[in-house]
Amino acid sequence: MSHNSFGHLFRVTTWGESHGPAIGCVVDGCPPRLALSEADIQPWLDRRRPGQSQFTTQRQEPDAVRILSGVFEGRTTGTPISLVIDNLDQRSRDYASVADRYRPGHADLAYDLKYGIRDPRGGGRSSARETAMRVAAGAVARLVLGPGVSVRGALVQIGPHPIERARWDWEEVGRNALFCPDAGTVPVWEAYLGAVRKRGSSAGAIIELQAEGVAPGLGAPIYAKLDADLAAALMSINAVKAVEIGAGFSAAEFSGEQNADPMRLRDGEVVFGSNNAGGILGGISTGQPITARFAVKPTSSILTPVQSVTRSGHEVDVATPGRHDPCVGIRAVPVGEAMLACVLADHLLRHRAQNPGPTQNPSQTPC
Amino acid sequence: MSHNSFGHLFRVTTWGESHGPAIGCVVDGCPPRLALSEADIQPWLDRRRPGQSQFTTQRQEPDAVRILSGVFEGRTTGTPISLVIDNLDQRSRDYASVADRYRPGHADLAYDLKYGIRDPRGGGRSSARETAMRVAAGAVARLVLGPGVSVRGALVQIGPHPIERARWDWEEVGRNALFCPDAGTVPVWEAYLGAVRKRGSSAGAIIELQAEGVAPGLGAPIYAKLDADLAAALMSINAVKAVEIGAGFSAAEFSGEQNADPMRLRDGEVVFGSNNAGGILGGISTGQPITARFAVKPTSSILTPVQSVTRSGHEVDVATPGRHDPCVGIRAVPVGEAMLACVLADHLLRHRAQNPGPTQNPSQTPC
Amino acid sequence: MSHNSFGHLFRVTTWGESHGPAIGCVVDGCPPRLALSEADIQPWLDRRRPGQSQFTTQRQEPDAVRILSGVFEGRTTGTPISLVIDNLDQRSRDYASVADRYRPGHADLAYDLKYGIRDPRGGGRSSARETAMRVAAGAVARLVLGPGVSVRGALVQIGPHPIERARWDWEEVGRNALFCPDAGTVPVWEAYLGAVRKRGSSAGAIIELQAEGVAPGLGAPIYAKLDADLAAALMSINAVKAVEIGAGFSAAEFSGEQNADPMRLRDGEVVFGSNNAGGILGGISTGQPITARFAVKPTSSILTPVQSVTRSGHEVDVATPGRHDPCVGIRAVPVGEAMLACVLADHLLRHRAQNPGPTQNPSQTPC
Amino acid sequence: MSHNSFGHLFRVTTWGESHGPAIGCVVDGCPPRLALSEADIQPWLDRRRPGQSQFTTQRQEPDAVRILSGVFEGRTTGTPISLVIDNLDQRSRDYASVADRYRPGHADLAYDLKYGIRDPRGGGRSSARETAMRVAAGAVARLVLGPGVSVRGALVQIGPHPIERARWDWEEVGRNALFCPDAGTVPVWEAYLGAVRKRGSSAGAIIELQAEGVAPGLGAPIYAKLDADLAAALMSINAVKAVEIGAGFSAAEFSGEQNADPMRLRDGEVVFGSNNAGGILGGISTGQPITARFAVKPTSSILTPVQSVTRSGHEVDVATPGRHDPCVGIRAVPVGEAMLACVLADHLLRHRAQNPGPTQNPSQTPC
Repeated sequence: MSHNSFGHLFRVTTWGESHGPAIGCVVDGCPPRLALSEADIQPWLDRRRPGQSQFTTQRQEPDAVRILSGVFEGRTTGTPISLVIDNLDQRSRDYASVADRYRPGHADLAYDLKYGIRDPRGGGRSSARETAMRVAAGAVARLVLGPGVSVRGALVQIGPHPIERARWDWEEVGRNALFCPDAGTVPVWEAYLGAVRKRGSSAGAIIELQAEGVAPGLGAPIYAKLDADLAAALMSINAVKAVEIGAGFSAAEFSGEQNADPMRLRDGEVVFGSNNAGGILGGISTGQPITARFAVKPTSSILTPVQSVTRSGHEVDVATPGRHDPCVGIRAVPVGEAMLACVLADHLLRHRAQNPGPTQNPSQTPC
Repeated sequence: MSHNSFGHLFRVTTWGESHGPAIGCVVDGCPPRLALSEADIQPWLDRRRPGQSQFTTQRQEPDAVRILSGVFEGRTTGTPISLVIDNLDQRSRDYASVADRYRPGHADLAYDLKYGIRDPRGGGRSSARETAMRVAAGAVARLVLGPGVSVRGALVQIGPHPIERARWDWEEVGRNALFCPDAGTVPVWEAYLGAVRKRGSSAGAIIELQAEGVAPGLGAPIYAKLDADLAAALMSINAVKAVEIGAGFSAAEFSGEQNADPMRLRDGEVVFGSNNAGGILGGISTGQPITARFAVKPTSSILTPVQSVTRSGHEVDVATPGRHDPCVGIRAVPVGEAMLACVLADHLLRHRAQNPGPTQNPSQTPC
Repeated sequence: MSHNSFGHLFRVTTWGESHGPAIGCVVDGCPPRLALSEADIQPWLDRRRPGQSQFTTQRQEPDAVRILSGVFEGRTTGTPISLVIDNLDQRSRDYASVADRYRPGHADLAYDLKYGIRDPRGGGRSSARETAMRVAAGAVARLVLGPGVSVRGALVQIGPHPIERARWDWEEVGRNALFCPDAGTVPVWEAYLGAVRKRGSSAGAIIELQAEGVAPGLGAPIYAKLDADLAAALMSINAVKAVEIGAGFSAAEFSGEQNADPMRLRDGEVVFGSNNAGGILGGISTGQPITARFAVKPTSSILTPVQSVTRSGHEVDVATPGRHDPCVGIRAVPVGEAMLACVLADHLLRHRAQNPGPTQNPSQTPC
Repeated sequence: MSHNSFGHLFRVTTWGESHGPAIGCVVDGCPPRLALSEADIQPWLDRRRPGQSQFTTQRQEPDAVRILSGVFEGRTTGTPISLVIDNLDQRSRDYASVADRYRPGHADLAYDLKYGIRDPRGGGRSSARETAMRVAAGAVARLVLGPGVSVRGALVQIGPHPIERARWDWEEVGRNALFCPDAGTVPVWEAYLGAVRKRGSSAGAIIELQAEGVAPGLGAPIYAKLDADLAAALMSINAVKAVEIGAGFSAAEFSGEQNADPMRLRDGEVVFGSNNAGGILGGISTGQPITARFAVKPTSSILTPVQSVTRSGHEVDVATPGRHDPCVGIRAVPVGEAMLACVLADHLLRHRAQNPGPTQNPSQTPC
């Protein structure tokens, strides 16, 4: 058990604060002999990197990752992979006043309640800066999953504005700074976020994830169900308040026959007529695409003043100037993808530990 | 790591199949010297027990729990508590045909894909019967939390019919068989479920949980956040497809200032003007009530035929006769409560391991 | 983390007290489709069963194991295997006086110091009766390892009397009640133990274990080394005070060239000229036989009075009448074997999770 | 589960290779508000540092530790503590020949068998260089234990030469480069080691550890016994082949009455007449000093040629020139101390999680 680790066999431990000298992670359990260099990780970090548009924090961090262990002559050795990113743009300023006031909606108060001490510089450990290491670990997880598995995500709603799903185009996600799969919605969001920024506010968002090519059989009932582990992984991302798999909350309104994805055979393989299950039944992957969504609340560090209290016991109105994301949900897209990749890699290892044979085709199982 | 265990310091391991001789669990890590007897557990099991209304399965199980270890002269000894419930009403019938057909929406196929074998009798391990042991463990967890903590739940939606929240009355929950907090909605649900049953279908539901009296400071960032562990615990319940904390998905539509719960001081204590956070900030409890909701899909075992395939590789239409809950969400209320209680008990132990002093009042912290 | 569980992927959780209604264990993570019935477990339990000679406790327990879950039609399903043994011969007698006095050398005092309560009936949880469940789990572990792996043990010393290693005969171990591999030593031990019993004393012992046919590559450095896990597993057995692998303490006196087992090739396979390493280098199995030894202290429940104190704070001399093993080390042989088998099964699963390919032959590795 | 982590609540994850750019560790679960700076760690590292006498490797490493996270203004924050040491003296030389030959007694072969790849530079991950991070973590563990707990160790045997225990003087340990508590033995060992070095050989050793001031009640039966966890922690140190607690193997020769440490009362506290138990009964600390010993085999990297094989499948004689410790057991003293400190810190946290009250005095327990 470790508070700052996740996964069991593909196990990631992260460390570091927003304004400390560096952040890092240790990826343990990675299979040996995988080709791995910084070039396999950096592109994913670049997608999450701050300062790339007016809708994310203006903090300038190259987020250049270094591999300090676990790789020899370009291949993983099976020993722990240590990844480090130096913090370069920690503005030195007086944080004494910040240290005394709790930002409403932020973890400030909670950390102090728990530990009786906190690092107030840029949010310390509770900063979303930590998520860079999740993205780095996710890049390694993608190598474990192999090229046959595709893990990707998109923003499907900002504030009250959802995309139009009929216009979904995965190619479009890479063309705009908002990870939006619907070109028609991009200007709507840009206008909305512009107004949000102007009035010193922030916006929430909903992210959708999909993994294709996932082998059936991943997930270990009862308490290591694939969807349970995925729910924890996504809920652990900063500012996330909700997670759903497949049809999610909508399933509550379905009838049994609407909800049950019908099965047919095509070339001896099971194919499904729909995917309300999100690719997971009984906590186990079925071979259908894994689909999940999660909601990110609006950034709590805003210019608009909100009633709060100080550590020394006074009431105060807190407005938070600084370089904050007006919509932290945007950069949550690569983070969510990374968490999904890590969960899948972990379950791939767990599955083959208990089930050494090839994943079963049910129509061919002899037993 | 164990697939069939949850919690870390208050740790529960369950075993057993729907139609095996018994089901059981081992609760490890329970503090010593707590008064505990079967009478502390049985009432909670009775709330979940099948056969109590026409809207739950007609299987007759007294669900009488026995304590086989860990208690001496009415007090816990700190050693593992073994709890067992005998299965009495496993109807013996030919399950050969069932064994060959995969019920759409059910875990049948997934278990077979994973293990190449499954126990088809009543769903085997994937049956919701397993949740009885969660409720039993939850009863022990309540004792760990002590009388100052109240953990309760209610059904807030069945199919397309939500309750009217203005009429919420916790007392009402115990007065009807549907765990409904709104007396006015009970007849609506009864009529709806009656129709659902009559046409051989099933209905989904949404459950809301609340824990009051939870000390601030519980939850261990980054990867053992209270809400992340709670999300996993709830998502691990059979048929659950979505989980949200506090405002949940609604938070995506809030502005930053709407979402941030304002803080004031009352008698030196922090009080909040709202609870969009659901009592959890940065993964740590704040002292506000913990609130969560989860969605349960409609029962997949229904009389209405759905397209499916057989193990031997043929297409088939599957209708599932038997004694199934038309709305498995109803009995998920005590199960959800139990999972919340277990997560809180586990985090209480985890918190005091790292933080031996009393939980801090931030306005008094001297450090 | 669970105090009463061991192993990670092949994971065993035990419960129960010496004089409670039953003892049991849950074996989680066992691969599916293995043939398993009570008949695969009972013979191993019979080897450990009390009352079989004058040198073990006279408590009469058939130790008949029942499988309550995890097996369907004679095959494991991949779900948790629940094993239970009823306690039949718990003599009802007044244990009030026992409850107040701490037996020197026994866990009585320590449990009370830790928990502030203990179950004094027959030692409660600290009784060696718990080891029956280790043997049961070990029987399942042997099936996971398969017929190619042989795990066996023998007693090599009782009190001051070691066997003569030149006369070692594995066949002899099954022919005498003392698990002695040296026929010539059996009468020596019988005479010695007879005298020990007569004067109300007890004797210690040393057990040697060997596993042949273990694949190379098992063990996960740095902190899950095969020998580290084995050391913990053996040290966790009641009354064990020392563990050594291969040459063990003797290695401290060797020179480097004496200690290093020389390697040659035979038919393309590496063969070793000696086995000081006990089959483990760097925490990883090499393919040589795994060898280990552990020391069991003399039973602390003896008729000879020893100075002690009472719970209520008085000095007292404690003599412990009852049905105790004069040499608890005898029955530790099957227990030690079981722990070795469980550790190997766990590491087999762990290894193949990270290393999906076949275990490497170093002279054929292409990478 | 992580292969490269140990401890559960006080949890240490190490990473890094002998000749990579750096080695490091993450210490998670450390209580907040402890005063901690590099100056608290460096002195312990200096005791283990290479190049301090002719009897340890001549590699020159300042082993200067840096704290990269988890500390704010000189106090721990409860978040993960990242510690890093740069590798400075990695001699660049051709290791191609080394990479092809397996040093007998070394982990070379085993790593290759397991992973099909290894980092041959200085032993890579299997190098004893990793133990520097154990010492660093141990320094933090000492702060968790507090000043009332003293953890120390000494070398008690090198090759065939044990110390004379009657001359034991803890002060002497710090006065010589061999951690010898017996001034009279120092010249004996120096002469012996000088001869060993001269003939290109190496020597084994035995280390003894002691922890005083440990609260009673630490250790969690059955499978997290204090001695079981200690056995694993010590056996995980490079080159260790044996571990014993208290009387250890000697206990096998004792009679029951010799072995059982008699108890008397002094000022209401339990005092023991001897300490064969090594301060641990039933896996739980009793308040007596914890004592343990472990054996370190002679360094396998020696100049004397030993028969071996190559990766490409040829027989060869291997002599290992280089800067190796002729007796790796010497520097194992601070490493063993660190492991003991870490195990105790972990169990202190585990104990108070389950047992929130003060550790019990048995003669005052009211329950």
